[in-house]
Amino acid sequence: MPMQSFINYTPDCDFPIENLPYGVFSTSDDETPRIGVAIGDLILDLKKTPNVFMGPLLEKKQNVFKQTTLNDFMALGKPYWKEARTSLQSYLSAENHKNKDQSTFVKQSDARMHVPATIGDYSDFFSSYYHAYNCSLMFNMAILRSNWRWVPIAYHGRSSSICISGTPVKRPIGQIIEDQSNPVPILSESKRLDFELEVGVFVGGPLNQLGETSDIGSVDDNIFGIVLLNDWSARDIQLWEMVPLGPFLSKNFATTISPWIVTMEALEPFKTENMKQDPTPLPYLLHSEPYNFDITLEAHLKTEKSTYKKLCQSNYKYLYWTAKQQLCHHMITGCNMRPGDLMGSGTISGPTDDSCGCLMELTFNGKNPIILDDSQTRTFLEDGDEVTFTGCCNGDGYRIGFGSCTGKILPHK
Amino acid sequence: MPMQSFINYTPDCDFPIENLPYGVFSTSDDETPRIGVAIGDLILDLKKTPNVFMGPLLEKKQNVFKQTTLNDFMALGKPYWKEARTSLQSYLSAENHKNKDQSTFVKQSDARMHVPATIGDYSDFFSSYYHAYNCSLMFNMAILRSNWRWVPIAYHGRSSSICISGTPVKRPIGQIIEDQSNPVPILSESKRLDFELEVGVFVGGPLNQLGETSDIGSVDDNIFGIVLLNDWSARDIQLWEMVPLGPFLSKNFATTISPWIVTMEALEPFKTENMKQDPTPLPYLLHSEPYNFDITLEAHLKTEKSTYKKLCQSNYKYLYWTAKQQLCHHMITGCNMRPGDLMGSGTISGPTDDSCGCLMELTFNGKNPIILDDSQTRTFLEDGDEVTFTGCCNGDGYRIGFGSCTGKILPHK
Repeated sequence: MPMQSFINYTPDCDFPIENLPYGVFSTSDDETPRIGVAIGDLILDLKKTPNVFMGPLLEKKQNVFKQTTLNDFMALGKPYWKEARTSLQSYLSAENHKNKDQSTFVKQSDARMHVPATIGDYSDFFSSYYHAYNCSLMFNMAILRSNWRWVPIAYHGRSSSICISGTPVKRPIGQIIEDQSNPVPILSESKRLDFELEVGVFVGGPLNQLGETSDIGSVDDNIFGIVLLNDWSARDIQLWEMVPLGPFLSKNFATTISPWIVTMEALEPFKTENMKQDPTPLPYLLHSEPYNFDITLEAHLKTEKSTYKKLCQSNYKYLYWTAKQQLCHHMITGCNMRPGDLMGSGTISGPTDDSCGCLMELTFNGKNPIILDDSQTRTFLEDGDEVTFTGCCNGDGYRIGFGSCTGKILPHK
Repeated sequence: MPMQSFINYTPDCDFPIENLPYGVFSTSDDETPRIGVAIGDLILDLKKTPNVFMGPLLEKKQNVFKQTTLNDFMALGKPYWKEARTSLQSYLSAENHKNKDQSTFVKQSDARMHVPATIGDYSDFFSSYYHAYNCSLMFNMAILRSNWRWVPIAYHGRSSSICISGTPVKRPIGQIIEDQSNPVPILSESKRLDFELEVGVFVGGPLNQLGETSDIGSVDDNIFGIVLLNDWSARDIQLWEMVPLGPFLSKNFATTISPWIVTMEALEPFKTENMKQDPTPLPYLLHSEPYNFDITLEAHLKTEKSTYKKLCQSNYKYLYWTAKQQLCHHMITGCNMRPGDLMGSGTISGPTDDSCGCLMELTFNGKNPIILDDSQTRTFLEDGDEVTFTGCCNGDGYRIGFGSCTGKILPHK
């Protein structure tokens, strides 16, 4: 039975009172970014709403809600996040309809969203089994027989180019090889521009100092929440540059995230079994309690000639390495994490052809074009294409939605 | 003929009036980090020194010198940096001995140094030809015949774990393979802990926005200055984790930099010929004017049983890809740079056996131990070992020194 709020919304709304994701927004009449909570099609403006967080922990921490980013709130840790949720659910509940003071709510359609945290470091994992399997097939890599089942493989990404949903993505230029039999590069627009359907996890709470590790039993206290993430990739640039040090320019021209951070508290009812891990991971990565989540993820494509068409449907539960394992691994050498750091999941692919999370997989590296309609096919993205990700958990009479993560490809010109 | 300052120092001092590197420091009686300039064995405290920067550009920008990091000053750009240098040289010149007001100077020995900028993103290149050549030999890689001579190869590094010279480095643990014929990992202390002799370049000035590239003819205006950089590396962790996405935990447990940023203006007299590049790079990377620098680099090792011994002597001029090429390449896909971003050079090795910039090369991957004295050899670093880098340019009657970049290995315990 869903909870009731004095804010009206339909059962298919992404942001019911069970969700309450955090974001940072501004409006035309107040251009300073500030923290808000999504409810229905509104935003509760935390900077302008007094007396929401009067519990024992947050009573003296009001300042964290008056910042331009969520970092300070993220730094507080799980007991604070839980109290905030309880306070917000109470404040917004149907019985407290006196709080329906319009001046504290802003329409989402009137708001401009911002990257919600200062992201000190962004790391991108490669944690989906089916994605790894498909890459192994396409590129004849032996990773599934060597390190991949032991190591939650990841690389460091670029923080500066993380942008908020809606930011256009200019087609990059870079070094590519046109004829693989004659490996002399040219400087060219990427001809193999791809999306990668991922989620990103924001970390927070008391984190390790340089040289310290952390225990798998406690790291879920450091996982704040989840966004959708598009790790745009230029496959032709990637293929040429990535040996021996991994992807660099092919991934750093833009990474798009959805604006609303869905908290782990909202996702708690959607926990599902972890994928079976064989071989058994090393003890520092071992946990038996479920920490996968049943989040349906979809990628949709709109072209200049047609409306949105679903390209694939995957699920966050197809992660082989859980976010707890990712985070614990990230700290094992003593690398210090900071509140607001972001971990990408890597492309999340499922077991079926239509659950592949990027065009490279969906088209088997460009060999099998996708038929969009009578007049259009795609191997990789074309100028004017707009890619939108959505994500949701289906509850009993409500859904926990992620909003959308959108970017349109602009010509390099 | 060297310039004269009212501060006394000997000709072998790292910080004569020709140098004037910038750093961020604090003292026991004022623990707020602040900007200073090294001269002799003193620091000119810019927060407490009035009327230094009264030129037409900086007159209204005094605030940049009152910050806790150099980012705002870095953001201004080359004309400002040049004016600052002229003003500082005038302020500190022998004829202005009236400025010898002791309250504006702090002894370097009384100061605690800090990472001098908020480093939004750190990227590490792989730009030394001899290092690449040696790696190719050791690991049977074909990179010199494939992409390396075309692409200034780099990977994204970790910002959070960049630490200032003197910070101890705890031996990391991680997944390693003990027996290569049986690739089942164990969690172990790294047994192949190495240093990498690098320099780091701080960027600044008006930089590109997301989606914009930059021209090789203008990027030297965006290069602020240089520090020594030790890219500590756990070779055993690296070998196991780095396929296919590059080094991650094996490099992110600590990166040490020297505290004083030597400006490109101070290095100008030490420009030297670029390395010959064959094949000719693509036009976006092509520049004919010299942008290599004759900077002698040394790595020294002190063990628990003996004093410092020089392990190698290399030179910044052995970079195949210049810092201009690195920066221009970094922006070619539209990746936006921010003032304070740091680019590591990659290990800088020279053509001779004693100019290899890391133990892996010096010992041919651990096969040929270095003999330190009658009772000590080294393949990789042991607990208690202290590694110090130095760098200098030898001028006529003066030297431009870099101070030192030091870290001591602590046991994991």
